Order: sequence, then C-alpha cells, then structure tokens
Amino acid sequence: MNKLVYSMPAHIVMEEDCLYRNRSFLAGLGKKAFIVTGRTSSGANGSFDDAVKALEANGQSFAVFDRVMSNPTEVCVYEAAAECRKASCDFVLAIGGGSPMDAAKAAAILAINDIPREKLFNRAFTSALPIAAVPTTAGTGSETTPYSVLVDTGSPDEDRFPDGRGAVTGQAKRSVGSPLIFPRFAFLDARYMRRLGRANTINTVIDALSHAVEGLLCVRANYLSDALAHKSITTILDCFDALLSFPALPEELPAEIREKLLLASSTAGMVIAQSGTSVVHSMGYMFTIHWGTDHGRANGLLLKPFLKWCQAKEKADPSVKPRIPVLCAALGTDLDTFCGRLEALLGRREKASETELETWGAAVMKNAANTYIQPNQGEILEMFREAVG
Amino acid sequence: MNKLVYSMPAHIVMEEDCLYRNRSFLAGLGKKAFIVTGRTSSGANGSFDDAVKALEANGQSFAVFDRVMSNPTEVCVYEAAAECRKASCDFVLAIGGGSPMDAAKAAAILAINDIPREKLFNRAFTSALPIAAVPTTAGTGSETTPYSVLVDTGSPDEDRFPDGRGAVTGQAKRSVGSPLIFPRFAFLDARYMRRLGRANTINTVIDALSHAVEGLLCVRANYLSDALAHKSITTILDCFDALLSFPALPEELPAEIREKLLLASSTAGMVIAQSGTSVVHSMGYMFTIHWGTDHGRANGLLLKPFLKWCQAKEKADPSVKPRIPVLCAALGTDLDTFCGRLEALLGRREKASETELETWGAAVMKNAANTYIQPNQGEILEMFREAVG
Repeated sequence: MNKLVYSMPAHIVMEEDCLYRNRSFLAGLGKKAFIVTGRTSSGANGSFDDAVKALEANGQSFAVFDRVMSNPTEVCVYEAAAECRKASCDFVLAIGGGSPMDAAKAAAILAINDIPREKLFNRAFTSALPIAAVPTTAGTGSETTPYSVLVDTGSPDEDRFPDGRGAVTGQAKRSVGSPLIFPRFAFLDARYMRRLGRANTINTVIDALSHAVEGLLCVRANYLSDALAHKSITTILDCFDALLSFPALPEELPAEIREKLLLASSTAGMVIAQSGTSVVHSMGYMFTIHWGTDHGRANGLLLKPFLKWCQAKEKADPSVKPRIPVLCAALGTDLDTFCGRLEALLGRREKASETELETWGAAVMKNAANTYIQPNQGEILEMFREAVG
Repeated sequence: MNKLVYSMPAHIVMEEDCLYRNRSFLAGLGKKAFIVTGRTSSGANGSFDDAVKALEANGQSFAVFDRVMSNPTEVCVYEAAAECRKASCDFVLAIGGGSPMDAAKAAAILAINDIPREKLFNRAFTSALPIAAVPTTAGTGSETTPYSVLVDTGSPDEDRFPDGRGAVTGQAKRSVGSPLIFPRFAFLDARYMRRLGRANTINTVIDALSHAVEGLLCVRANYLSDALAHKSITTILDCFDALLSFPALPEELPAEIREKLLLASSTAGMVIAQSGTSVVHSMGYMFTIHWGTDHGRANGLLLKPFLKWCQAKEKADPSVKPRIPVLCAALGTDLDTFCGRLEALLGRREKASETELETWGAAVMKNAANTYIQPNQGEILEMFREAVG
C-alpha cells in the first residue's frame, strides 16, 4: 500500500464580494485583525477596502502592516510580528500576492513565539495566530498551503537585489512549513485581479502552472494531489489562448478567464500542500535571488529543460515509474507542443554567464530530493544551461 | 462569478498498519476513546484490535459501543451517546462501514448535547466530541463527510425491516449535516477489506460510484468536487473488470484493487461533502427502508433510469447546462456502455408492486431540490418504474 497523506483544512469560499458576504468567518477569529499586505496593490484593487468594510460590519478593530516587499525577508516578518504583538491582534488577515501571504504566515507565528530565525526555519514553535487569506493574484496558491517562503538574510553577503527593494543576493529562499499556518479561510474574489497587467498576470499564472506540473513529478505526489493537479493544468491550458492575446487593457481580459485562473491557482496550492515542489522551484530561486526575476517566470524558464530531462530519463531507465504520460494526459497534448506554447507566453529568455551557471548548478543540489527522479549536479547545471545559457 | 464553497478538514492517512503508525493523531484527541462499531465485522477484519493496540501504546483508555445495527436508528445513537457520557470519553473512534460511522458521528454530538431528536436533525447544537474514523468498507466515504444519516423512528408505523435487525419501515432516513462532525482523522487501511465478500464489496463500491456520479449532477457541484468526482469515477471504472470476475475467495481480489477502491470511496466522500447527493439517494432510501436493500445497491438500481432521464432532459431543453458530457468524460465511454457494465455488476433487479411505486413516487418529491435538473413527481415515479417496476 503506497502511503498517502492528505490535509488541506482551509475553508475556501469564492464569490463576488466574498469578504463582506462571508464576514461571519472573520468574526469567529477574534476581536482585532492584523492586516498584512503590500505597499500599494491591495489599495488599488479594492481588496483592502473590502476587508475593512467586512471587519467594521463585524465590529472588529484592526492594525495594518503594509510594508511587505517582494520576496519578503525574515527581517521584514520580525518587524511585522512586533507590530502585531504591540497592537494585541487576535488574528492575521493576509491580503495580496505570494509575498504578503508568505510574510503574514510567518508573522502569525512570530507574534506569539519569541524565537530566533533558526527556530522559525526549523519549526521550533507549537502555535500561531489564526490566519485568513485573500489572494489578489492568481498564482501563488499560498491561501491553500501551509508554507511561508522567506528570503533568509542571515549570511554575510550584502549585495542588493537589482531593483533595490529589499532582499539580499547570495542568500537562500527558505520555506517554513507547518500545519499551524494553513489559512483557516481563503476568500477568493477574482475581481481583485481585474487590473493585473499582462506581465503580472502571465508570471503568476506560470507559477500556478508550475505548481501543478511539478506537483505531478514529486516524490510526495499522491492520488489526490494528482487529481487536483490534473484539474488545475487543464484549466490553465484552457486559458492559454486568451493569455497569448492579452488585451491592451487588463480589464478587457474576460472575467471568466480571471475566475478560471484563480480557481486553478488555489487548486495548484492544494496540490503542493500535499506534494511539495520539485527541483524547479529550488533552481528558480536562484534567478529570483540573483536577478530579481519574478518567481513564476523563474519556474517557467526552467520547466522545459526539466520536463525534457524527465522524459529522457524515463526513456533511458525502465525502472523509473513513468510520470510524463500522466502529465501529458492532463496537458491534453505531447510535451513538445506544450513547451512550444509555454515559450510563446515566456517570450525572450534571460541569459546567464558561465560563472553564474556553475555557481547555481552547485548550489541547488541539496534541494533535489523531492523530485521523482533525482538529478545530479551535472544534470542540474545542464538544465540551467538550457534554460538561460 | 459562480459561488464555490470547499471544505474538507479531515486529515487523511493511508498506509499499512495505519492506526498504529499514526497513533500520535489519536493521542492528541484526549485521554479516553469511545469506540463505536458494529457487532462483529471490526473484530473479524482486525481493525478493532489495531485500534486497541494503538490506544494502549498511547496509554489511552477506552469504552466500547458495538451494538450499531445496519441503518442505525436515532434510538441507537441516543443509547450510544448515553454510554459515552457515562464513560466520560473525550473523543469518538468510529470503526466500520457507513452505519457505525453514521452512528458514531451522531453520538459525538449527543454525548455533550442533551437535546431531543428534532434538535439533532435541525442542527440545534454547537459542539461535538472530536471524531476519528476507520472505514472497513470501501463505499460510504463517511470518513471524509460532515454527514450522519440515521433512520428516524419517530413516526408510529412499526413494521420491522425484513432482516429484523432494527430499523423501522415507513420511517425516513434523515441526514444530520454539520462541520462539527467532520472526522479530524481518517485512517485508511485497505487490509480491513480483504475478507469482504462479493456482495458487500460490490454494493459498497456502487455506493461510492453513486456518490461520485451524483456529485457531478448536483446543484452544489463545483470546480473542486468535479475534479475529485472525475478521479473517483475513473478509478472505480478501472476496477470494474476485476469486480465482475470476483474470485471465489475474497482474499484473492488483488490488494491493489482493494486499495484503489478505498481511495476512490474516500474521494467520493470528499465530493459529496461539497456537492451533497441527488434525488437518487432520496429515492434509494425507499428501497432500504421498505425492503432492507443495501444502500449502495439501492442507489445502483436507480442510476441508469436517472442518468437516462438526465440525458433526455438535456437534449430536450437547451437552457439546461449539460452535465452528462462531463460525466461521460470521466466514464471514458458513452452512457449506454456504462449502464450496461453497471447492470452486469447489479445482476437481477428487485421488483416492486404498483402500490409501492406510487407511494414512493409521491414520497421523495421534497428531496429533489439539490439535483441539477429537478424532476417532478411523475418523472420520479417513472424512474422508480424503470428501476424496479
């Protein structure tokens, strides 16, 4: 009997005006909310106002932390946690894309656990404030996962990100995974994505796609994560044509496409909540850490080399249980056709220097263990080379 | 935006020796367990001993209620609840098929809520003891649902079931649905099904199949329940040949088939936890109440007339959003082929008198509301007629 573990306790609700209509869920979480969000987007897309309206209708008070940067550092989440503690909040309301949700989850732990960085990353805690999540991109799926991914600035190298917005190059993206930070509620309202432009929309979709595709190719993939991955992949592929002909005004992307993408990304979150992610994520972190490449795009750049490598390995080694056919069944096409369509979405690829390639090839070895076929150092280097060489 | 609600907080673990290996989950539920099970099967299949071994290794004590009959009455669950209260148990451990799990869930409510029957059925309670579930059949999926289905003996008619084992004819099967009775943990160990004979195996599989098929055809069906239904149906259909050539000794049915069926039935439970069931379930209760027909078989007898009716309605009315093509995609075949294969599993059909048919046709009208196309009284009667006329 193959071992299967499935857990996804978040209560998901999707509908128009979702937060307000389901505000009773927030009412059950405590008297005072700690809203964690990014600098601007939740204001512009209406989600912040909707949250405030729901909380006020409940007679709940709140404090706001709106200084989450892209790829939040552990420094940022300690800062958020200190403010949460000072404001005596009872629960955390995360509003935004992956970065605010990642930060909110870690803050929910640190607000009631006075622990240093290493204890956070090693999960040496047994409590966290309850969390509710409102995604404003369709990509991360963090609203249905128990993960918080942070940039650990612990090491001495202090070069800044190209965009200067916070995280430090040479550092690792590290994941805190704990059932304690599964959001209790995921409020899905696709209206918050209406104004997301072409690049943000496509990069986040590719993140979701990568979650679903990688989810099929992990050691921890199981019967239920496969079912969800299949659905998510099918849905995203259905939207490819609409994404390729992205309209001049983001609002002109049909509401139905926005809704499908949101469903697919939350579902892909449910997938990786079970399966974890593959070497693609570990490799992609390198692009983000060193170049500031968007997380979704970083994964996307690596998918083709990774999938072609998997296919070659399956052909060469009859002892490998083939998974590429399972993927192709979900894709509804062969790998080459899919990779071609993905290339069209990705556009022109970044290029790395030989030194970068070799540094990265050596750096991600330690993270390959959850991939269903474990690549060696040379193979990882080769995938990097094919992606951005 | 179509409204979607998804909730399935049970933590599922499947593996050999599942209870013992994951006994720490039980340890977290309290000091003393109230084991609810049937009269004999949990002893014979090893599940009861495994539960005791796990509890004892945790240093937990327990009390046992092993008098759950098929299709448990509310009288039975009040009795169980009284024993649970008397024994001061902290949590309920349900072991068995649908009947023990249904009874255990209701007992978990009544053990800490001193409420009369109507308040139970009307969900006038706000607490329940935590529940863990160990299915010993692959059918009900109750381990992943928030439902407890009971026979309400409240009305005066006192004719016995044909098998004399408890429930009263002329009474309604009624469902208690509450998030409070979602099992916290579902322990899946397909070894407990090893000795289930042909009839029990097939009847319970048909129950699971009916959950997944009906789950696609309910008003409350959604994106996620569809994904899970698709997987469950595909899996069960994969096992049809093995079931049709059921071996002389139940132990000879391959372990891999038992495992697939268990996965499919828990998944189908996840489906109806979202979608609810259709008019097929309401209609099938009539066979069970009046004839003592096994619940799974009762649904199975009705599936063909119901699906053919759905197909005809879809063809006749262009305003109906077609769902039969979604079902056929999961079945991997057309409706007639599927119905033919199902007939082979069902074997010879029961026959009802015209009086029975007419009584039942009138009785189930009130329960049709969750079906995606709502049948009228004449249509329900016609389906009954085609099933057992």
